[in-house]
Amino acid sequence: MRLLECVPNISEGRDQDKIDQIVEPIRIHKRVKLLDLSSDKDHNRSVISFIGEPEAVQEAALAMALKAIDLIDMRYHRGEHPRMGAVDVVPFVPILGVEMEEAVRVARAFGKELGKRGIPVYYYEEAATEPHRKELPTIRKGEYEGLKRKLEDPAWKPDEGPAIFNPKSGATVVGARFPLIAYNVNLKTREIGLAKEIAKKVRFKDGGFPFVRALGIELKDKGMVQVSMNLTNYHITNIPKVYEFIREEAKKRGIEIGGSEIIGLIPLAALEGIVQSYLKCPGFSIRQVIEQRILEFE
Amino acid sequence: MRLLECVPNISEGRDQDKIDQIVEPIRIHKRVKLLDLSSDKDHNRSVISFIGEPEAVQEAALAMALKAIDLIDMRYHRGEHPRMGAVDVVPFVPILGVEMEEAVRVARAFGKELGKRGIPVYYYEEAATEPHRKELPTIRKGEYEGLKRKLEDPAWKPDEGPAIFNPKSGATVVGARFPLIAYNVNLKTREIGLAKEIAKKVRFKDGGFPFVRALGIELKDKGMVQVSMNLTNYHITNIPKVYEFIREEAKKRGIEIGGSEIIGLIPLAALEGIVQSYLKCPGFSIRQVIEQRILEFE
Repeated sequence: MRLLECVPNISEGRDQDKIDQIVEPIRIHKRVKLLDLSSDKDHNRSVISFIGEPEAVQEAALAMALKAIDLIDMRYHRGEHPRMGAVDVVPFVPILGVEMEEAVRVARAFGKELGKRGIPVYYYEEAATEPHRKELPTIRKGEYEGLKRKLEDPAWKPDEGPAIFNPKSGATVVGARFPLIAYNVNLKTREIGLAKEIAKKVRFKDGGFPFVRALGIELKDKGMVQVSMNLTNYHITNIPKVYEFIREEAKKRGIEIGGSEIIGLIPLAALEGIVQSYLKCPGFSIRQVIEQRILEFE
Repeated sequence: MRLLECVPNISEGRDQDKIDQIVEPIRIHKRVKLLDLSSDKDHNRSVISFIGEPEAVQEAALAMALKAIDLIDMRYHRGEHPRMGAVDVVPFVPILGVEMEEAVRVARAFGKELGKRGIPVYYYEEAATEPHRKELPTIRKGEYEGLKRKLEDPAWKPDEGPAIFNPKSGATVVGARFPLIAYNVNLKTREIGLAKEIAKKVRFKDGGFPFVRALGIELKDKGMVQVSMNLTNYHITNIPKVYEFIREEAKKRGIEIGGSEIIGLIPLAALEGIVQSYLKCPGFSIRQVIEQRILEFE
């Protein structure tokens, strides 16, 4: 079995009936599995996660996107989260037996189909066509409200579809990326300044580890602070590296770790490095995990 | 998807043609997957591992056993490893979505079928019918050569099949057990006495951790010694517990750990405790692993 994940973010998080209709093509598709659906009313946004063989995922993603384009009207969309389109972001993520090249190929085939239907499409991350289009925040800067002007700028000619503002649907950002791990480490202190300080040391932007984004936040209920992270390429920077770094930095400041948490789903491969490093067990491979064998066989 | 594993040990490890014929019913069965086959010429024994839905596993196990009974003649069997029958031991192991009760039910249904075909069958471990029959070494004591006399002893009336010695096939031990993890920790010393001393402290038999068997052995090539373990119920005693204990004991003696190794296959669930303890991450569940979700869905 080969597995590609798709994690579309759509600009509807309040109308449950519409959300259900948009997700329906994924639910009824026989060769993909819906892994997760979470809608946020403040963000007015839903994040869908589903998985399957690459061809099936591409098919289901398109059917879902067309439904969203039909039902969502960006002229009336309000929400906390930055966005520029009805189908806002569609990343494809290689999980099992799929190379990044193939995820990029699927992203571009999907993007081409959206483009044909009049939606301006930008490719990002591993599917980006130009270096300045690699990062999602850069592409999305100005949001839906600034899109008309952005499309007039030759530097922002879309990768697919017309360079013409589509008021109902906005634009869509499509890409391929590694699985993202949301990982938080709690510190036994109430001093938010310390969490911010350590977050700054660990994140790439300020000279820390590659593929790490980090913020310091307060956990008022717990009386602790947290270094909240996204690890965007666990092949390069995995959980033990940031955990041990934060532990050392906290220790220097006389603070203990209160615990850590992995949020949402992770690929099995992300556990390989944890076993290898903590048990001094460099030979360990996830191919030794029975469940992995089963999936490879299918 | 629900998964039961079966790990038959058969008394043929030399004649590749016979081994292939015996494994054939597993290879061709459409609803089970052969995970591993390892034959040992000195032991003159092969260990097969396969997996599938419980009913399919029972079917394939029986087809394999009948082939082994047909092709192996215990009157001519010589080998280093203790054994009492052509189909020597057949444990059924719950892996995913299967309770131990069901593994026991499958073991007994399988045992009954062998009994009907004239093979004395003893149930062991979780399938045992009496406390003194729980442990494999106790049942197998006296081996094939002592089986005729054992069967005459009312205390050793078989659980299935006739209490009559079957010279060609011997007897079969059938059971249900938790997955076994073969785990070794290497110590940076050449003093075998220290490995034996620590092995003694860690194993249950001498007052150590429940469900741990351990031996101290020499690794001449590496210039180290090893605490070689079987963890027979990782729900009770998991890898981090023995690793940390051995590390502490070694440290007291001024010795460092040279590394550790997990041998063969392990269930994904065995990794849960590793993540939880080393990352102070008690909330982590293997249900957060994408591959686990996929298998649950199927």
